[in-house]
Amino acid sequence: MSEGTQDIEALIELMARLPGLGPRSARRAVLHLIKKRGALMGPLAEAMGAVAASARECVVCGNVGTSDICAICESEKRATGEICVVEDVADLWAMERSGVFKGRYHVLGGTLSALDAVGPEELRIPRLVERVAAEGVTEVILALGATIDGQTTAHYIADHLSGVTVTSLAQGVPVGGELDYLDDGTITAALKARRSF
Amino acid sequence: MSEGTQDIEALIELMARLPGLGPRSARRAVLHLIKKRGALMGPLAEAMGAVAASARECVVCGNVGTSDICAICESEKRATGEICVVEDVADLWAMERSGVFKGRYHVLGGTLSALDAVGPEELRIPRLVERVAAEGVTEVILALGATIDGQTTAHYIADHLSGVTVTSLAQGVPVGGELDYLDDGTITAALKARRSF
Repeated sequence: MSEGTQDIEALIELMARLPGLGPRSARRAVLHLIKKRGALMGPLAEAMGAVAASARECVVCGNVGTSDICAICESEKRATGEICVVEDVADLWAMERSGVFKGRYHVLGGTLSALDAVGPEELRIPRLVERVAAEGVTEVILALGATIDGQTTAHYIADHLSGVTVTSLAQGVPVGGELDYLDDGTITAALKARRSF
Repeated sequence: MSEGTQDIEALIELMARLPGLGPRSARRAVLHLIKKRGALMGPLAEAMGAVAASARECVVCGNVGTSDICAICESEKRATGEICVVEDVADLWAMERSGVFKGRYHVLGGTLSALDAVGPEELRIPRLVERVAAEGVTEVILALGATIDGQTTAHYIADHLSGVTVTSLAQGVPVGGELDYLDDGTITAALKARRSF
């Protein structure tokens, strides 16, 4: 890089801090942006500025949006009796893309982890317990990852909720999945949870 | 994704148009940005806006910068007698990182390609011929890719320059490279260009 292009260098350094981009791909992205500075870079800078100014976390569920209470928590169409507990906002978005769940969410913001010193207080778990009591919730669906930390968190939450049905997503063969490509744990879970055909 | 977050959706769509990012990694990047909206997203939006407003191509060599004539073309420290011809700005930056070349550049903006209907007029080749005549250039170094299109372009340029030494980068074993991992073409080139030890 040459002198006199500090702005461009600064932009590359910031871009390289995005997940999935390194210095090399950040340079490539910035060159692409400069080529399309009218059609892409200007609008992207504006959109980013707008979101940076307006984005916030929903005070009820932890989803991100542009108001203090997110569109899902505010919507009267969403059932109040069911809360789906997810690890992070990306998981919430994945559930929403499937379009199958009509209740509300609770975003933990991670999983319990002894290694990373993440305890219940860091995870909006107390807030979940409050919501279950306050909102007349009848079912809490745990949609947490099938990892050790995810399952530890699920057990912790189940132990701390009372007077409510606690369920979790089924484990088994993914739709379109071939047995040959599945790990042993998934096959074991799918066999144990087999159902009549 | 839920209603009421049009700003965030718009941002994800724009991010997904960057090279190396798809819809999934764009979502991940935007969630990361929202988490770090103070420390990263705000500065990034500003830096991007600044570059979008100020970036332009050097009228002499085609490098990108923030003025009509780039820092390299304006620098009196850079030798005017040597022009290094590269395909695009990323290649120019790679040459500059090595720090070994002290002359000036000429960015073609691509390679000749019959398939993509890219002719000499699209590539700043006429401008190169003008510069060689006008700037008292003694050597043109062709630093083009060792691809068919790159070499076709190199031959075309060499045919259209006169009264100037035309050289190209050496081909051979990369520094740190092991023979076992090299393709046949590179080994052939390295053997043909062998030198006394």
